[in-house]
Amino acid sequence: MSDPLSASVAPERLSQRELHDIDAYWRAANYLTIGQIYLMDNPLLREPLRLDHVKPRLLGHWGTSPGLSFIYAHLNRVIRARDEGVIYVCGPGHGGPAMVANTYLEGTYSELYPDITLDEAGMRKLFRQFSFPGGIPSHAAPDVPGSIHEGGELGYALSHAFGAAFDNPDLIVACVVGDGEAETGPLAAAWHSNKFLNPARDGAVLPILHLNGYKIANPTILARIPEDELHALFIGYGYEPLFVEGHDPSLMHERMAVVLDQAMDKIHNIQNAARGGSEHSSRPKWPMIVLRSPKGWTGPKEVDGLKTEGFWRSHQVPLSGIAENPKHLKLLEEWLRSYRPEELFDPTGAPFASIRETAPRGMRRMSANPHANGGLLRKSLDLPSLQDHAVVAGQPGSMKAESTKAMGDFLRAVVKLNDVAKNFRIVGPDETASNRLQDVFQVTERAWMETILPEDVHLGRDGRVMEILSEHTCQGWLEGYLLTGRHGLFSCYEAFIHIVDSMFNQHAKWLDACQDIPWRRPISSLNYLLSSHVWHQEHNGFSHQDPGFIDVALNKKADIVRVYLPPDANTLLCVTDHVLRTWNRINIIVAGKPPSWQWLSMDKAVVHCRAGIGIWDWASTGNVGEPDVVLACAGDVPTLETLAAVQLLKELAPNLAIRVVNVVDLMTLQPKEHHPHGLSDKQFDALFTTDKPVIFAYHGYPWTIHRLTYRRTNHNNIHVRGYNEEGTTTTPFDMTVLNGLDRYHIVHSVLDWVPELKSIRVGLKQVMDSKLVEHRAYIRAHGQDMPEIRDWQWVDERASKSG
Amino acid sequence: MSDPLSASVAPERLSQRELHDIDAYWRAANYLTIGQIYLMDNPLLREPLRLDHVKPRLLGHWGTSPGLSFIYAHLNRVIRARDEGVIYVCGPGHGGPAMVANTYLEGTYSELYPDITLDEAGMRKLFRQFSFPGGIPSHAAPDVPGSIHEGGELGYALSHAFGAAFDNPDLIVACVVGDGEAETGPLAAAWHSNKFLNPARDGAVLPILHLNGYKIANPTILARIPEDELHALFIGYGYEPLFVEGHDPSLMHERMAVVLDQAMDKIHNIQNAARGGSEHSSRPKWPMIVLRSPKGWTGPKEVDGLKTEGFWRSHQVPLSGIAENPKHLKLLEEWLRSYRPEELFDPTGAPFASIRETAPRGMRRMSANPHANGGLLRKSLDLPSLQDHAVVAGQPGSMKAESTKAMGDFLRAVVKLNDVAKNFRIVGPDETASNRLQDVFQVTERAWMETILPEDVHLGRDGRVMEILSEHTCQGWLEGYLLTGRHGLFSCYEAFIHIVDSMFNQHAKWLDACQDIPWRRPISSLNYLLSSHVWHQEHNGFSHQDPGFIDVALNKKADIVRVYLPPDANTLLCVTDHVLRTWNRINIIVAGKPPSWQWLSMDKAVVHCRAGIGIWDWASTGNVGEPDVVLACAGDVPTLETLAAVQLLKELAPNLAIRVVNVVDLMTLQPKEHHPHGLSDKQFDALFTTDKPVIFAYHGYPWTIHRLTYRRTNHNNIHVRGYNEEGTTTTPFDMTVLNGLDRYHIVHSVLDWVPELKSIRVGLKQVMDSKLVEHRAYIRAHGQDMPEIRDWQWVDERASKSG
Repeated sequence: MSDPLSASVAPERLSQRELHDIDAYWRAANYLTIGQIYLMDNPLLREPLRLDHVKPRLLGHWGTSPGLSFIYAHLNRVIRARDEGVIYVCGPGHGGPAMVANTYLEGTYSELYPDITLDEAGMRKLFRQFSFPGGIPSHAAPDVPGSIHEGGELGYALSHAFGAAFDNPDLIVACVVGDGEAETGPLAAAWHSNKFLNPARDGAVLPILHLNGYKIANPTILARIPEDELHALFIGYGYEPLFVEGHDPSLMHERMAVVLDQAMDKIHNIQNAARGGSEHSSRPKWPMIVLRSPKGWTGPKEVDGLKTEGFWRSHQVPLSGIAENPKHLKLLEEWLRSYRPEELFDPTGAPFASIRETAPRGMRRMSANPHANGGLLRKSLDLPSLQDHAVVAGQPGSMKAESTKAMGDFLRAVVKLNDVAKNFRIVGPDETASNRLQDVFQVTERAWMETILPEDVHLGRDGRVMEILSEHTCQGWLEGYLLTGRHGLFSCYEAFIHIVDSMFNQHAKWLDACQDIPWRRPISSLNYLLSSHVWHQEHNGFSHQDPGFIDVALNKKADIVRVYLPPDANTLLCVTDHVLRTWNRINIIVAGKPPSWQWLSMDKAVVHCRAGIGIWDWASTGNVGEPDVVLACAGDVPTLETLAAVQLLKELAPNLAIRVVNVVDLMTLQPKEHHPHGLSDKQFDALFTTDKPVIFAYHGYPWTIHRLTYRRTNHNNIHVRGYNEEGTTTTPFDMTVLNGLDRYHIVHSVLDWVPELKSIRVGLKQVMDSKLVEHRAYIRAHGQDMPEIRDWQWVDERASKSG
Repeated sequence: MSDPLSASVAPERLSQRELHDIDAYWRAANYLTIGQIYLMDNPLLREPLRLDHVKPRLLGHWGTSPGLSFIYAHLNRVIRARDEGVIYVCGPGHGGPAMVANTYLEGTYSELYPDITLDEAGMRKLFRQFSFPGGIPSHAAPDVPGSIHEGGELGYALSHAFGAAFDNPDLIVACVVGDGEAETGPLAAAWHSNKFLNPARDGAVLPILHLNGYKIANPTILARIPEDELHALFIGYGYEPLFVEGHDPSLMHERMAVVLDQAMDKIHNIQNAARGGSEHSSRPKWPMIVLRSPKGWTGPKEVDGLKTEGFWRSHQVPLSGIAENPKHLKLLEEWLRSYRPEELFDPTGAPFASIRETAPRGMRRMSANPHANGGLLRKSLDLPSLQDHAVVAGQPGSMKAESTKAMGDFLRAVVKLNDVAKNFRIVGPDETASNRLQDVFQVTERAWMETILPEDVHLGRDGRVMEILSEHTCQGWLEGYLLTGRHGLFSCYEAFIHIVDSMFNQHAKWLDACQDIPWRRPISSLNYLLSSHVWHQEHNGFSHQDPGFIDVALNKKADIVRVYLPPDANTLLCVTDHVLRTWNRINIIVAGKPPSWQWLSMDKAVVHCRAGIGIWDWASTGNVGEPDVVLACAGDVPTLETLAAVQLLKELAPNLAIRVVNVVDLMTLQPKEHHPHGLSDKQFDALFTTDKPVIFAYHGYPWTIHRLTYRRTNHNNIHVRGYNEEGTTTTPFDMTVLNGLDRYHIVHSVLDWVPELKSIRVGLKQVMDSKLVEHRAYIRAHGQDMPEIRDWQWVDERASKSG
């Protein structure tokens, strides 16, 4: 698609005609931007502007908008001149009206929203709907064609852009980074994404740092540091910076055209060299552009005697209080007329052909590029047979396996099967092997474009595993990759996934908003494996113990979020297989990595995971149909401790009828009305009874279970044990003891709540307490758990009976 | 304290004697580090090493440790030579055993933990306790003397360091940044903190980037990029980088000594110039050091034929499987003996005097510097009279005010009163004015060390307001400032405080751990003002609407966390006054900024806030002692809608007895056993009854209230309305309607749940529904709320009666 010779097509200088058309296009985009912020009516200023033409609430952000449109106009030129495939990631997403204006000029907006026609009536609607109740939001939200980046929360433009470029060799992602956003940590980290982009296999990212100098009420750092430091900074990040600086539009047009051509030439030179094989072996210095232009460029120079253009007063609505201040109404009209709308729009209100023709055609329009509506391009993953990767579990509790290692084996097959399609990546902050997914390295490597030394292990230019010690960058890459129609998994330590809480929130909101936009096609789900979890952090202790991400997730829309707590390897494989087939969701899987007892064969795991929750008959005792107590568990460690408690209770209270309920899919606990996976009350009552005590051993914070079940009939009888924010560097069993999740505390709860056990309660609790004392003393003396814990094994009486 | 002439005292080269002593100190620290990781017994290797001398579980991180101790040893030298005040921020906090080793050699450890004596018995305990159940954690946690930085979650070393340096002119904060940590976003952003550090007023930060080349299982980016890029990067960040690179200890000692002297000279030259007034006006280029040394330096070169020193295999425990592999036991002994312990420790096991004397004395020891135990230095803030800043509220609902603007007025006085003490700062991501705290700019400015232009507003070298568009940096600065004994406030948009969820978690864990360490003196609380909240985000819409930070906070220890939802300006002032007096807590205040009705006089606000919750008699109707329904509210917007609902109900159901309960302190809802602010069940029942319907209008996600109250007698009758994750760019009232929090929906709930209203239920619900239809139609037609909403005012019948 991109022709290396096309560089010669590019003019050294713009022709006067081209300059004129680009400037007219830009003026039209600016006019349409201001119209959206201000006007209810009289969109073409056919009559003098009156107060009732102006919106009563003036909302939106002008400051960044003219720069965004300037870049858009010039990208359009190079796309047409060179037949490039480009998408536009708009970091300052609050410049939404500018993005809408450009997509309207391209015609895409009217194609997707037929009532917003390319005429005066359509323009009126376009203006009115912006930031208006029942209309469209103020950011580059999912309703904006060509957007994969809402830009409401700043920091993720560049990692999104790189995510979009991976495995898209013919795509150039132009990424505008505002100088406000550039101060954020996630953005600062993402500059180093160039160390992971392979010019032979991947597309290109063209970062455009837009220095307009100001944030809401402050100068920006990068706009004020000395020029030599700014230059050095981007050299240091590994780029070749190209500068476009000024304020005179015609000079800026010429300079921008030249620089953009240079950048495109450099990109293609790098790609051609790499794809010819000659420079494949080192990381190129990709070009990036620094565009320094006034904030609120072409807007009012002064308002009420105060500097406005080129200052932070342009950030939102430079002219406000229109109703109270007739002078401002007049200024607004002058400002709008300064773009000479009569030269931009024909008598019907349509942009003149010369303006529309500066935009590319069809799918070359950035607003119509299918990569920016990734569901259009998405192909399902080829997935291996679950049975081929099953852990041969035998009878429950008869063998141990490392759950996440089994998952690594499954993922190895996923990588292999989709090797040709090149549409699956695993990201993580250097924790792929630590989380025991290392089998994937049998078929792929870690992507790495810097020097590779002889002693390096599993580093390579074409690796499908992406490791950088930045959870933000991992999340941003994966989001960008998914939004452009591919698949992936984020493997992370459980505690530190909180680092991306806010990114999770934003992605969940994006997916939620997409549900109401028919032309947005489904994208693959964002899948997390959280391992090295709260109960398995002996190396690191308290700072690494936090199961609260689930609680953050539960606040988002039920349609979007799923939480899975597979108790063993085969259930983990089932869940993994499932989540890789889903779309438009965020799936959170929490699973441990050390060797642990296995409970279910693959056949049983499939049945259990399909239901998401179920009675484990084989672990229950007495009359399962009418239990005296329900022992529920969710999570691998809670399941282990629950089964150990069952075993203790079999001895201590042989007549007790215990029902064991295991929860894989946490969402089943919620009422059906709250979550699509939720059990009906009838189903819930059938599992948890309506009146028997339920001792619930849960992986995370106990109140999460209460929050999910407070409407259930039997809620008052549900007693939850979980993580109580007690922790340090200690043994795995001691961790459960510190938090009262261990087998002895579970027995305690059973003794407390089962009336039938009243007579033996005091005595047996003393037995449990002395066990705990003995354990803790042993642990403190020997630095490890007692052999009876390390060697504990489930005694499967039914199996031995039937066997 | 720091003598500018002392530069001449520093040797060009280390004397042989100094070199020898420093190396011996370093070997001792390394020996003690390895001992902690490996040994249960035989600490001085008086007998051949046996398996039973070795810990059964080998936990800890060797890789970073020798570099940390190398730096420590050299800092000790310059502290002694120049009588400097230095603290050590250890970014790679998992090098905990190294930090412990150094503080033990300094004697501080034994002073604070008298059973860990400076002899063989003490050394045995020192070794055994590390990462051992009942012992100490593996990181530079609060139990480590001199630490203000746990370093478990990576990213915050540099912002903590700058926070510590602000307003501490005689302090130098040496900050070791690991090359893993350097990949994180928060760390990358924090390099720009130098734009806010005033050499005349503040101390200095000396960043030491430790390039040991590897993370857990990967090379690091900064260690592999070309040297010229690395150099340019730090020029770009505004520093003068100084390089120390190599692996031969004696060459490295010499080079490090020279470079550290250079760095100290440069720091003092900058400070002297600024404090003499000559260069006060521009931001200096502070020195920073790049230390490139092998990972696991001096450790095993190879293990089982695989490269270990200088590679990531050194990251944790380079020799493992000791029990199964006698060769590894032998290697371990050889490794330990390579430090020649007999030259380091005398026959009693105490370090030789020549080694101990390389460390500074008394409070000059980095482990004993009082700045690192900030509570020692903390002085209470001087606070203004609340009455002087009260909003004159008159009768409830008789006037409007901007709550956070009133808070800004109060904070203005706080800044002024503590101007001499220089111990109070406000941080925020460019939102101080947006959140309406702008009155503080009457007495101070925004700190800014770059160029200041004539048009700039409230920028200055000495500003006490710190604005950078990085929530991470804001949080890190403030934590560092508080940990060194000062006070502050973080003002942030509510939705984006989620960006620091994980930092919040870590700080809460730090405070929790400090409760068990008697020598750690209380530090000021971390105070948040969250404004521009979910109900007031018309400009920005869905991405800016998230009240979930409260839920993250509630997962942490009850002793630490407080959440306040003041309903008006005077209650906000009371809460502000209160939180600025507290210590060892994290206080979250959520308050809105637009003009809103005021409810309480300052006298009443004080009483209400002291209780944290209470019945508003003046808003209740009928027989308050025996209500038919309780309308509870928490948050400013929910309070408004609740009172509007009361007013509607007065007309619709004049005989209904409504009790209005307002909650300022959310923690009062929890059981007394769960939170120190929790009401007893008796108190709770007295407010919420045991059997009447409670309609609870809540600021955030509704299930939060259920989570807090599920144990209460009347919980089954509590019906919560709150934020249901519905939002877009629309009017304030429409936001409440979208989420069912508006007055009409509240009336709906009353009609649903009060049996006495059954006969009029259907009819009145229709009236409410038609109101809602009418409103939504108006909003969509006019782009703003109906006049009856905009002009709504509380009718205070009792006031008019009594008046």
